[in-house]
Amino acid sequence: MTTLFEPCGVITITTDFGHRGPFVGTMKGVILNRFADAKIIDLTHEAYVHWPAEAGFWLERSFRYFPRGTVHLAVVDPGVGTERSVLLVIGDGHAFLAPDNGLLAGVIDAIDATVIKIADDRLAALSLDRISATFHGRDIFAPIAGALAAGAVDPRTLGKPTLDYIPSLIEPPDMHGGELHGIVITPDNFGNLITNIDASELERFSRPRVRAGGHEIAFRRTYGDVAPGGLLALVNSLGVVEISRAEQSAAELLGIGRGAPVIIAETP
Amino acid sequence: MTTLFEPCGVITITTDFGHRGPFVGTMKGVILNRFADAKIIDLTHEAYVHWPAEAGFWLERSFRYFPRGTVHLAVVDPGVGTERSVLLVIGDGHAFLAPDNGLLAGVIDAIDATVIKIADDRLAALSLDRISATFHGRDIFAPIAGALAAGAVDPRTLGKPTLDYIPSLIEPPDMHGGELHGIVITPDNFGNLITNIDASELERFSRPRVRAGGHEIAFRRTYGDVAPGGLLALVNSLGVVEISRAEQSAAELLGIGRGAPVIIAETP
Amino acid sequence: MTTLFEPCGVITITTDFGHRGPFVGTMKGVILNRFADAKIIDLTHEAYVHWPAEAGFWLERSFRYFPRGTVHLAVVDPGVGTERSVLLVIGDGHAFLAPDNGLLAGVIDAIDATVIKIADDRLAALSLDRISATFHGRDIFAPIAGALAAGAVDPRTLGKPTLDYIPSLIEPPDMHGGELHGIVITPDNFGNLITNIDASELERFSRPRVRAGGHEIAFRRTYGDVAPGGLLALVNSLGVVEISRAEQSAAELLGIGRGAPVIIAETP
Repeated sequence: MTTLFEPCGVITITTDFGHRGPFVGTMKGVILNRFADAKIIDLTHEAYVHWPAEAGFWLERSFRYFPRGTVHLAVVDPGVGTERSVLLVIGDGHAFLAPDNGLLAGVIDAIDATVIKIADDRLAALSLDRISATFHGRDIFAPIAGALAAGAVDPRTLGKPTLDYIPSLIEPPDMHGGELHGIVITPDNFGNLITNIDASELERFSRPRVRAGGHEIAFRRTYGDVAPGGLLALVNSLGVVEISRAEQSAAELLGIGRGAPVIIAETP
Repeated sequence: MTTLFEPCGVITITTDFGHRGPFVGTMKGVILNRFADAKIIDLTHEAYVHWPAEAGFWLERSFRYFPRGTVHLAVVDPGVGTERSVLLVIGDGHAFLAPDNGLLAGVIDAIDATVIKIADDRLAALSLDRISATFHGRDIFAPIAGALAAGAVDPRTLGKPTLDYIPSLIEPPDMHGGELHGIVITPDNFGNLITNIDASELERFSRPRVRAGGHEIAFRRTYGDVAPGGLLALVNSLGVVEISRAEQSAAELLGIGRGAPVIIAETP
Repeated sequence: MTTLFEPCGVITITTDFGHRGPFVGTMKGVILNRFADAKIIDLTHEAYVHWPAEAGFWLERSFRYFPRGTVHLAVVDPGVGTERSVLLVIGDGHAFLAPDNGLLAGVIDAIDATVIKIADDRLAALSLDRISATFHGRDIFAPIAGALAAGAVDPRTLGKPTLDYIPSLIEPPDMHGGELHGIVITPDNFGNLITNIDASELERFSRPRVRAGGHEIAFRRTYGDVAPGGLLALVNSLGVVEISRAEQSAAELLGIGRGAPVIIAETP
């Protein structure tokens, strides 16, 4: 029998908890209690609150840079304490653990995924006592991640594979009228606007350009290809279309942010 | 002779330094110089500046989630460079190191604590040379934490147990007129208002409700028990009363924050 | 033959990426892929964006607190994807890796440095495939840092020592008219204004004081030496002149920040 998942000891954590308060830290304490040798890496804790789509996007576009055998834990969980399930997704050598709220939909699409809903009676068997109504990151997700990374639990014992899970809350880019309609997922720390448009979509066009925030924007290779202050579009390091402004903030200039429409069209 | 403290190699750090500048990072460098195998976890570095009460609250409500043998280092230290002492508190298998400014008062109340003021001549014996006047986190606390976590120093040699230390700067909740008067310790990243009222205090009431920011607020089990935008009170994952607004910010709606009065009263 | 650099397994990371998004996290994933036992410490990720001088200042003033054998990786890189070179600087037992844009100029001045421009053909030999045009932190700097910290690559093989590198973007303090003219490098989390004036410069004066933001400010030893709210100047824990306000923000009171002039003069 092949093993579904071979852990390497690395755990990444992605949340919308920010850095105020001990919330991420206590999750790490819980992990260390289950697995003293865990190597814990923060992916980000500044995902948009209550919007699983951004956290899922970061994870989908980043996980391949971690060693095979990494457990990726993501908690953006507006439904905490209600009946929503816990998903374990395994594929391409990585394991992903998150609430079943659409967060992992993009990851599932990107890999050859086995999706497991963790059965309630298995939570009991994992000795998860004292489960609070408001912090499953600490009380459910962290101990399971620790057990998985330690190789102390076989994923197959946690539940049966399923095809029944919540889809992504955001639509994929949509082609109509000869134009591709996507959205801004988020601005980064530099004010670059990161979209949900995969680079492969550009192959539909012979000379694509971007329309967003009332501007028509040409593609370049990198930021230094325009003068400081100039707008450009490019395929960024995550493999998606990004709208940038050399050495300045595109988000500020265009006055747009999360969810704003971004259109790829043929240059006339 | 029993050992006062058996280290497990984990060190947590709590400060009000924020994330600008190399201040927390250099503390970690100093720790690694003393103990190359230290496992260092950030609890938070966004405690309110110059207000030891919040940092102490986080620590008091979080430390039990870390393995026994953890050294918890907390530096919110407006009196740095003056005559204030260095406290080492040991109990329930954990060690705590902080300035003697009230930060650890809540921890001391919560455990079977041995409190040690580290004697000035012991600082010299620990080879703490080049002590700056403004950054004892790096020059005093970090090397002692490293030595404790490495098992390289016996806590008993650092000073004599004492009952003389600075009390908390905030009063515990107070019962008068049939109502319990507490305060907001801090809002979290979601705008939930976290109070200093322990869940056990609710047993004084048959049908408690919360008064804060001009609103009367009923208790629920978790956020999803009210419609998005609705106010609720609950016992949060730290074991204290919290005022929340489902999927939105209670702090913003109520217009209150740190130190604001929160009253528990009987529902009429 | 002596070894140019003996790694201890510690890597520090300094960037202007902030904490939004998975950018620092993926760099750590790449490092762990090359060196599973790396001990990775964040120095700061909130350096001013696109201004290498602040990141370089933090590094120059902090690196000695880390164990000898540490690899310090710093990425503030407005020229990413253009022709700028990759610098490896080795000295005093530490290694530094950064874009050749002035970031490391202060470090080079502070140590007995060997400066190596990493040759383009060596990047290929390091199996750095799939180099994006916008994220060399992940695609070039992280894998080299991992290889150096693992002892898997001899620095001498990466390129020839050179004296040709970009100088610092900020001028050192300048003496004229009997006064020393420096600047504010950055405010810290408390609103203390940190300058580029080394403590040794004060020896030029018998009773120095500071002029900044329209105020004349006397030197003290530490914050507690003036009443809360009072302004003071001091030599801070990084060994430079700092303008502070006890328990409050000097930056706010004086209304100045990065780049503002700071003058040391004789007290009349």
